[in-house]
Amino acid sequence: MSAPEFPAASPEQHLNDLLLNHPGVSLSTAESCTGGGVANRITRIAGSSNYFLGGIVSYSNDAKHHLLGVPEPVLANPGAVSEICARLMAEGSRTAFGSVVAVSTTGIAGPAGGTERKPVGLVYIAVTGPFGTECEEYRFPGSRAEVIESAIQTAMTRLTHYVARVLDARTA
Amino acid sequence: MSAPEFPAASPEQHLNDLLLNHPGVSLSTAESCTGGGVANRITRIAGSSNYFLGGIVSYSNDAKHHLLGVPEPVLANPGAVSEICARLMAEGSRTAFGSVVAVSTTGIAGPAGGTERKPVGLVYIAVTGPFGTECEEYRFPGSRAEVIESAIQTAMTRLTHYVARVLDARTA
Repeated sequence: MSAPEFPAASPEQHLNDLLLNHPGVSLSTAESCTGGGVANRITRIAGSSNYFLGGIVSYSNDAKHHLLGVPEPVLANPGAVSEICARLMAEGSRTAFGSVVAVSTTGIAGPAGGTERKPVGLVYIAVTGPFGTECEEYRFPGSRAEVIESAIQTAMTRLTHYVARVLDARTA
Repeated sequence: MSAPEFPAASPEQHLNDLLLNHPGVSLSTAESCTGGGVANRITRIAGSSNYFLGGIVSYSNDAKHHLLGVPEPVLANPGAVSEICARLMAEGSRTAFGSVVAVSTTGIAGPAGGTERKPVGLVYIAVTGPFGTECEEYRFPGSRAEVIESAIQTAMTRLTHYVARVLDARTA
């Protein structure tokens, strides 16, 4: 997917600039491995309450099931760290908050919890909205803090790109 | 309320040390003005998935109502930034996640949104659990970033104190 690079401003500042000038596109999150870090980045910007409805930090599998509607068989296999779970988390957040666009993260931040098939640093990030759900798999290097930070930054950038496309389509 | 000071470690590290040695006390959050920052602080610690079930970032009033069960009349008056709303948010998080202890934040981070009766910096933080619900009102000075950071730090410290008391009672 080719995507325009953003100027020097942070993705959350760019997101804010986009949405304050084009109201009507509300946002929500569903976070596992980033633990609220994406919501935290969005809400550090003054004005974010105009478009950010909220988020669910679904650290436990029970929370992914009960609050985001991820079916228990999915959580059993392929498991919470999977493309399908990321997709369902984003879609579940969109339903729970009634948002236009939602982003989700699920992965293994480490240092424990990794396996040969699902190593530390494996993260799935999904964005859903009027163009459907798009999910990508990432392998982020480094420490727990570095994996979390890479996942937050990537989620923010992906979310901002998606929102820019929604706004482009509205004004086309 | 007199409370012991913690040593040099951060409250989230202290919380982790407490809970890893005494399993069975699960945690959840309900955040408005801190926007996921409390959950983010808890989950930066490796091992937090052993006791942190998740959190709800209820930025919109709809989210406070639908996901945390805060009645709409409360959100109308006295409003989302009130002691009763903070109490109900914490209790709603405990119910939503089935946690033993939950913490909530609601306030006005600014720079906009303040009034004479509810100025920027006004924050309510509640903690709920086996000892019931305890809420305190704060007036944090400074910029939006400083108000948010003060609220996160205070919520973390209050949560950790509460958990320490729960563990003290269990071992008494």
